[in-house]
Amino acid sequence: MLLTVINPNTTESMTASIGKAAAAVAAPGTTIRAVTPAMGPASIESHYDEALAVPGLLAEIAAGERAGSAGYVIACFGDPGLEAARELAHGPVVGIAEAAMRTASYLGRGFSVVTTLGRTAGRAHDLAEHYGAARFCRGIHACEIPVLELETDPAARERITEECRRAIAQDGSDAVVLGCAGMADLCAHIAGAIGVPVVDGVAAATKAVESLVSLGLRTGDRGEFARPPAKTYTGILADFQIH
Amino acid sequence: MLLTVINPNTTESMTASIGKAAAAVAAPGTTIRAVTPAMGPASIESHYDEALAVPGLLAEIAAGERAGSAGYVIACFGDPGLEAARELAHGPVVGIAEAAMRTASYLGRGFSVVTTLGRTAGRAHDLAEHYGAARFCRGIHACEIPVLELETDPAARERITEECRRAIAQDGSDAVVLGCAGMADLCAHIAGAIGVPVVDGVAAATKAVESLVSLGLRTGDRGEFARPPAKTYTGILADFQIH
Amino acid sequence: MLLTVINPNTTESMTASIGKAAAAVAAPGTTIRAVTPAMGPASIESHYDEALAVPGLLAEIAAGERAGSAGYVIACFGDPGLEAARELAHGPVVGIAEAAMRTASYLGRGFSVVTTLGRTAGRAHDLAEHYGAARFCRGIHACEIPVLELETDPAARERITEECRRAIAQDGSDAVVLGCAGMADLCAHIAGAIGVPVVDGVAAATKAVESLVSLGLRTGDRGEFARPPAKTYTGILADFQIH
Amino acid sequence: MLLTVINPNTTESMTASIGKAAAAVAAPGTTIRAVTPAMGPASIESHYDEALAVPGLLAEIAAGERAGSAGYVIACFGDPGLEAARELAHGPVVGIAEAAMRTASYLGRGFSVVTTLGRTAGRAHDLAEHYGAARFCRGIHACEIPVLELETDPAARERITEECRRAIAQDGSDAVVLGCAGMADLCAHIAGAIGVPVVDGVAAATKAVESLVSLGLRTGDRGEFARPPAKTYTGILADFQIH
Amino acid sequence: MLLTVINPNTTESMTASIGKAAAAVAAPGTTIRAVTPAMGPASIESHYDEALAVPGLLAEIAAGERAGSAGYVIACFGDPGLEAARELAHGPVVGIAEAAMRTASYLGRGFSVVTTLGRTAGRAHDLAEHYGAARFCRGIHACEIPVLELETDPAARERITEECRRAIAQDGSDAVVLGCAGMADLCAHIAGAIGVPVVDGVAAATKAVESLVSLGLRTGDRGEFARPPAKTYTGILADFQIH
Amino acid sequence: MLLTVINPNTTESMTASIGKAAAAVAAPGTTIRAVTPAMGPASIESHYDEALAVPGLLAEIAAGERAGSAGYVIACFGDPGLEAARELAHGPVVGIAEAAMRTASYLGRGFSVVTTLGRTAGRAHDLAEHYGAARFCRGIHACEIPVLELETDPAARERITEECRRAIAQDGSDAVVLGCAGMADLCAHIAGAIGVPVVDGVAAATKAVESLVSLGLRTGDRGEFARPPAKTYTGILADFQIH
Repeated sequence: MLLTVINPNTTESMTASIGKAAAAVAAPGTTIRAVTPAMGPASIESHYDEALAVPGLLAEIAAGERAGSAGYVIACFGDPGLEAARELAHGPVVGIAEAAMRTASYLGRGFSVVTTLGRTAGRAHDLAEHYGAARFCRGIHACEIPVLELETDPAARERITEECRRAIAQDGSDAVVLGCAGMADLCAHIAGAIGVPVVDGVAAATKAVESLVSLGLRTGDRGEFARPPAKTYTGILADFQIH
Repeated sequence: MLLTVINPNTTESMTASIGKAAAAVAAPGTTIRAVTPAMGPASIESHYDEALAVPGLLAEIAAGERAGSAGYVIACFGDPGLEAARELAHGPVVGIAEAAMRTASYLGRGFSVVTTLGRTAGRAHDLAEHYGAARFCRGIHACEIPVLELETDPAARERITEECRRAIAQDGSDAVVLGCAGMADLCAHIAGAIGVPVVDGVAAATKAVESLVSLGLRTGDRGEFARPPAKTYTGILADFQIH
Repeated sequence: MLLTVINPNTTESMTASIGKAAAAVAAPGTTIRAVTPAMGPASIESHYDEALAVPGLLAEIAAGERAGSAGYVIACFGDPGLEAARELAHGPVVGIAEAAMRTASYLGRGFSVVTTLGRTAGRAHDLAEHYGAARFCRGIHACEIPVLELETDPAARERITEECRRAIAQDGSDAVVLGCAGMADLCAHIAGAIGVPVVDGVAAATKAVESLVSLGLRTGDRGEFARPPAKTYTGILADFQIH
Repeated sequence: MLLTVINPNTTESMTASIGKAAAAVAAPGTTIRAVTPAMGPASIESHYDEALAVPGLLAEIAAGERAGSAGYVIACFGDPGLEAARELAHGPVVGIAEAAMRTASYLGRGFSVVTTLGRTAGRAHDLAEHYGAARFCRGIHACEIPVLELETDPAARERITEECRRAIAQDGSDAVVLGCAGMADLCAHIAGAIGVPVVDGVAAATKAVESLVSLGLRTGDRGEFARPPAKTYTGILADFQIH
Repeated sequence: MLLTVINPNTTESMTASIGKAAAAVAAPGTTIRAVTPAMGPASIESHYDEALAVPGLLAEIAAGERAGSAGYVIACFGDPGLEAARELAHGPVVGIAEAAMRTASYLGRGFSVVTTLGRTAGRAHDLAEHYGAARFCRGIHACEIPVLELETDPAARERITEECRRAIAQDGSDAVVLGCAGMADLCAHIAGAIGVPVVDGVAAATKAVESLVSLGLRTGDRGEFARPPAKTYTGILADFQIH
Repeated sequence: MLLTVINPNTTESMTASIGKAAAAVAAPGTTIRAVTPAMGPASIESHYDEALAVPGLLAEIAAGERAGSAGYVIACFGDPGLEAARELAHGPVVGIAEAAMRTASYLGRGFSVVTTLGRTAGRAHDLAEHYGAARFCRGIHACEIPVLELETDPAARERITEECRRAIAQDGSDAVVLGCAGMADLCAHIAGAIGVPVVDGVAAATKAVESLVSLGLRTGDRGEFARPPAKTYTGILADFQIH
């Protein structure tokens, strides 16, 4: 089973770390392809960044289809382009916010999200509602560390761990959801430090899409998620035309 | 990884068929223990049946703990005793309605549930709300076939298939959720016949609990789902005392 | 009019106190039968306890039917077994959380629940939603006094009174709901001390079921709450078989 | 216990019939005062009528306070002036839509409302939401009989009975709520004819307010429902000034 | 285009200030008629006041119709009598809470309401829900200044400004909504002082109704908001009869 | 006042018609700039199209800022890129679905949306929820006419008119919302034909943004909608870098 994990930003070191997190939980027989788009922002920290990450991400879905990918993970906590990707791919597509929130919902009555910048909390809130996870999501907490500093700031790990500890106490939650693909490698450390289940979306989404493929399930393609009608695209996006 | 799949009714032929459905999707390295409680109703078709299925089910959770079970599936679409089981078990516990609804939510904007008796629709509706799946659940449809006749009525397969086809058309859904553990073996047939994804809860819950165990996740046990306080139980339930 | 008030735990002193609270508000001509199940937990403080209290409670409903009971109160704030009891009884069945919340909703825009252990707050929250009282329920507050210590701890009365005072101030509520049948005898004291309406569920449910019977109303029995289909029950629950 | 039942319209024959319905269910020791306002519309069939019924209704609350009334019923299904009345009265005030909907919520999973004119359905919908009864209210059905023709049209009884039967079947409801005080005397007939519980708001509200008074409960008066600040009223409403 | 702005209380200095705020934002060609009812309370600070303001307000709608008014603003933050007014007027009618909340919803993810007395917050909360603005309304804050002291208390301006600043910080809001028509003239000052958008309902409603008239839109009059059925009104309200 | 109306697809005849609809309702002193992006799909009929329309649309926002535009309309009923545009623009940005739904909410209790292809209904449903208009939106109806055929199919006008008539009757709505910018020129015809208010989003959004500018209001820029952090963009999107 070939699964494609797309890092929607263009920072390759982050793709590597995401690919590692996915591979670490994949079942025997599952192969992980972690890919970086050829265009878009270096990190995603605004609606603007998210919008501009989508064309590159969709190009990777198209490439994945040509490569025979059985399913896809969109590895940014804003789940950018998820619905467009579902129209394009034949196999299932799972976003990491979607998978993390649904996975955490199995673990108790409520979870807390700990994310990077406060300005992304609105998007996380919208997604929680969209996925039916709002009733489980007790709070969205920002540690105000920019995405790319997760890799470079030596203090980041402890600041995030402390924010998780504080969030759990304040919200009375049963679990933590990490709100950024760049936090995937902190999951085990935080769980050990604070003693509650911690869900990393990259790992959760990898298991979710792998499970869907095992179960023979794919996006329903009779209505909203049917293949897009063919039409002309112009300008620098002309290559996105569907045939 | 040892997983226990509990059929909450006392009909052993149904346990066998449920165990087969679980084993069919388990990853290499996962062992399925399908068990039948020593007490309770022959099938679950009312709130009364459901209530009386729970003690036997909880005894099986206790037995599973002694046997080293890493996680549990509760294989009745009412998800009876799920919260009590989570207090008792160290590993994750997943209900088949819970898993089926969350799994179907990855497949599009809406699903239709097709179940046995109309009188159980209220419970399914409550569960959809409880799990945050109400926004995806577009309809709950009964074919008015009693649970135990699923195995014996030769016309059941086609009646259920037709009800699924009708439900999808009426609700404009992207997927079907089968609303009874006794329908597990019909899943592939119906999917083939009607051309939309069909989710069987037994298979979905098996993959969900297997994924949670792979991810190192279990029920948060610091609050509502901590082990129950020890106390005296009297009468024929005295053996349920926790030490 | 004969009404049966069931204490779902097996502690007889608590049954006596509940029976007294019910009798104190009953109209002339109403007879209260307060009963204790022959099996189950000494107190109810977890989902596990609640699940195991239900068989004994249902046996008391069956006994009440034989005794000609016109209606029933389930006197535990988790309203255990309410839906199953409604299938079994011919007359109306009311839970004390249900009645307390609906009664408090007549008294203003919002109420605060004050209960025993924090781990039961999740159940109270679910019930508030289930009964349509979530929009009135502004907070659920625990005083962390175990149920059976309500009777024995001399400081309990004042701790609960203080928690009620604090809850009203914090939530800006118009009324208090006492979240445990064991608090029934504190109601008048607390109302006097804090100067806002305080609702005890045992008294509220007694008036609710008495009113339903006076109005000639019973559970609708054409659909979900019709009598359960007859079937085999095995093991120590064989006696629960319905004929 | 003196209870005042206010018919918010000025049609005295309707007041008489409402008073009779209230008295029929009152407990021994409860006295019913049924009153008609000195100003306002002959019947209430629009937002405009409802708004103009309120001053007369509030004058009756003030008169009831002088007469020592222990509680009040507002006997129009739009529950006009309920919140203002709660500010003015010392005892509890209950609307018939409020009581009917809460009472019907004890009887199963859902009820259908059958009312007079379709143009009043929006108000009933708002009230169902406001009282937390929206999750129980499965449909609001109009028989398009003007309020005052309920008393005079000999075919009204059967048309309403048929609409109730149709509503129950269409909505899959467990009970019917009659959506007009003028239908109070049809309740027993319809229940007998269609075989499901039928709730008349006048009777339900009478029992609700009587229960609240028995329980020693009144509207919380520390916040929103405190007595209105004294101030000048001018014009023909100058008499409404509070001292 | 002639627009009528109704101050539902009887304080003429407040009408003048409201009229000024409306005229300040009206487009060239729009004429503002600001009117004061001949009966009712001097200010509106309770449900009781609100109920008694409505007849005078409806008389002004009737007068506006005779004067050829193309649309109406109801300039009290409780939006009293809005639905009745819509039945009576041929052109559109807009409440200032309604317009302020909808307008603020264009400006970001959430707004805070800052109002006069805490006892009016319940009404504002109901309106937010009724208009679909509850998901944008993050908090309702009272500065406990009576309505008529807004004009006379020299400290009012700064207290309200500080409450706005505090509300924004506490709620994390993108904008402020002023919760009283009497605050209209503070809008620019507060916006300048705290640096976030501040919405005054009088101005917002004036633009909303002017826009509706420009677009050729009026209340739909085929159902709930059709003209009220003609009938007898008695007592001091006899003049409100519709012909 | 210079307002920019962006047609997010690349079909220039549609831009012309949209610009005409906006200009027709603009106040004296308002200048409309209707613009077409240099890249993207010829029409927007899927999530994929919508995602790929956004970069071109954002380029037009950036161009509008350079041209001194005071506010923006996004003239596609999916409101693509609205949140990103709000981060980028200094003045207010309004989507046509947003404005149409909020405008229709002033006209009664409920509206029906009539749109082009059924596959876009999911997006309209999400937007209704996002804007708080779900409680007003009674149905979303497709006439299955592709966007570009609105201009060329001579039967389109009558098919849409009939669909509007049918929708109003089925939903019991007070108003119609046209679900495509390409329907702007049909608005008056349909309103005349079916006799209920019909809202065209292009006109409604033009008045909404013009009103916001008149009121001195813009998007709150202290939190989620602050200008995006500057960072590197690569590939064909490098020009989107913010300085």
